[in-house]
Amino acid sequence: MRTISENKSFGGVQGVYAHQSDSCGCEMTFGLFLPEEAEEHPVPLLWYLSGLTCTHENAMVKAGAQQWAAEYGVAVVFPDTSPRGKGVADDEAFDLGQGAGFYVNATQAPWARHYKMWDYIAEELPRIVTTNFEVDDERQSITGHSMGGHGALTLAMRLQGRFRSVSAFAPIASPTTSDWGRKQFGAYLGPDESLWADHDASLRMRAVGFDGPVLIDQGAKDQFLHLLKPEALAEAMMARRQPGQMRMQPGYDHSYYFVSTFMADHVAFHAENLYAR
Amino acid sequence: MRTISENKSFGGVQGVYAHQSDSCGCEMTFGLFLPEEAEEHPVPLLWYLSGLTCTHENAMVKAGAQQWAAEYGVAVVFPDTSPRGKGVADDEAFDLGQGAGFYVNATQAPWARHYKMWDYIAEELPRIVTTNFEVDDERQSITGHSMGGHGALTLAMRLQGRFRSVSAFAPIASPTTSDWGRKQFGAYLGPDESLWADHDASLRMRAVGFDGPVLIDQGAKDQFLHLLKPEALAEAMMARRQPGQMRMQPGYDHSYYFVSTFMADHVAFHAENLYAR
Repeated sequence: MRTISENKSFGGVQGVYAHQSDSCGCEMTFGLFLPEEAEEHPVPLLWYLSGLTCTHENAMVKAGAQQWAAEYGVAVVFPDTSPRGKGVADDEAFDLGQGAGFYVNATQAPWARHYKMWDYIAEELPRIVTTNFEVDDERQSITGHSMGGHGALTLAMRLQGRFRSVSAFAPIASPTTSDWGRKQFGAYLGPDESLWADHDASLRMRAVGFDGPVLIDQGAKDQFLHLLKPEALAEAMMARRQPGQMRMQPGYDHSYYFVSTFMADHVAFHAENLYAR
Repeated sequence: MRTISENKSFGGVQGVYAHQSDSCGCEMTFGLFLPEEAEEHPVPLLWYLSGLTCTHENAMVKAGAQQWAAEYGVAVVFPDTSPRGKGVADDEAFDLGQGAGFYVNATQAPWARHYKMWDYIAEELPRIVTTNFEVDDERQSITGHSMGGHGALTLAMRLQGRFRSVSAFAPIASPTTSDWGRKQFGAYLGPDESLWADHDASLRMRAVGFDGPVLIDQGAKDQFLHLLKPEALAEAMMARRQPGQMRMQPGYDHSYYFVSTFMADHVAFHAENLYAR
């Protein structure tokens, strides 16, 4: 692992680090904010998964998470959204290939060689972060935006016990019924749709739910609402009797202006659970 | 109008009043909490509609609303849930007849003569309250519990412009598909189901929504969840892009222990809108 940069931020350190990834077979970069408390003892860890086209950097720069993470003494990790590099398969579309890993393990050519984002986020990066930094792997929560909201919800519901709470900003909530999902699952996972269901937050919510609280925010003027389908997730959350809440925020769109507005609420929500008991 | 009782409460006055109702053709009783500020100037008004079996008294005694209404300087009116008296039609079931008006105008025998709860809540009682007390009819919001949540939501969505905000505790959310609704609409409105839709919060939400913010709380251990169907309302709110939020509260049941726990949030929510601009 090599350090690309470290900047003091809100009393803590915003670092960027790179490492050779076994899962993805390429060098991967991630951001990590450590609050001041990490100098003294391990701190709880919040995962922030980003959306289409993002690298590790977008949320780190634009989501405004550090202020609140510092206030609550929580670390935040900002992973990249796909494998990267010249030898890594790509597509001209912004929503497939590099920057669009969709948090799955690809099984289909040409993606299968590098696109193992599930393994990377679920197994490899947690090991690297907990080994190299003062974070407490017994106290983790997860959030994300858009494709990253999809990732956060599906990881949380499949890795039961790992995360104490899950939240999402404008998640891709029903990928098996949306052009944001069907295209990518077809490419990465192949045509057998029975293999897609585990990666659909609404289907997973309806089937098993999450063993902890859930917070979802969605902007009512989101230009991608027809692709996100929050109604499917809302219906599933209530049908499941899932502890949690879903909020439709009038006037907000899909941008980081939306994400940063509600970041304080999300970090406070996770901190409450991360510091419980 | 005659005064049945007035008790000082949280610096204001909790009154109970009775009057001959033109709509219902019988004497009707209501509770009204006026905060201290009503001695000086008209105050905003929050409507609280009660559920099956309730009179004006249950919420007045058990919902804990006065503490928060006093804090924010808001009046709260607690209407009865049906016409009452010996000459008023009734049924042995707890969910039909007296105590179960369902906030509709009955058109069918034997109910049509007295059961005009829509007119009573939408027209007659507002006139009486605003004429006799220091309340500001330009600043009204509405909430309710169970059958009263159904009433609050349907009144708010049909009387657009009347209420600045609407909330509900465990509302009967889909009466046209539930035994809490089909039985009563059939009895009061007759078999033509096209006449029922205006009184179904989920259908109304999907069709027109509410011109203001919405807050819904539902207990996850509510013994009547299968009759309430919050999933229908959640799906409709998100499909409509309705500003607002819906929360599933783990461990809470259908009782006033649930209602009183979240009353502070609901009064604060309404106060924010009642005092805006």
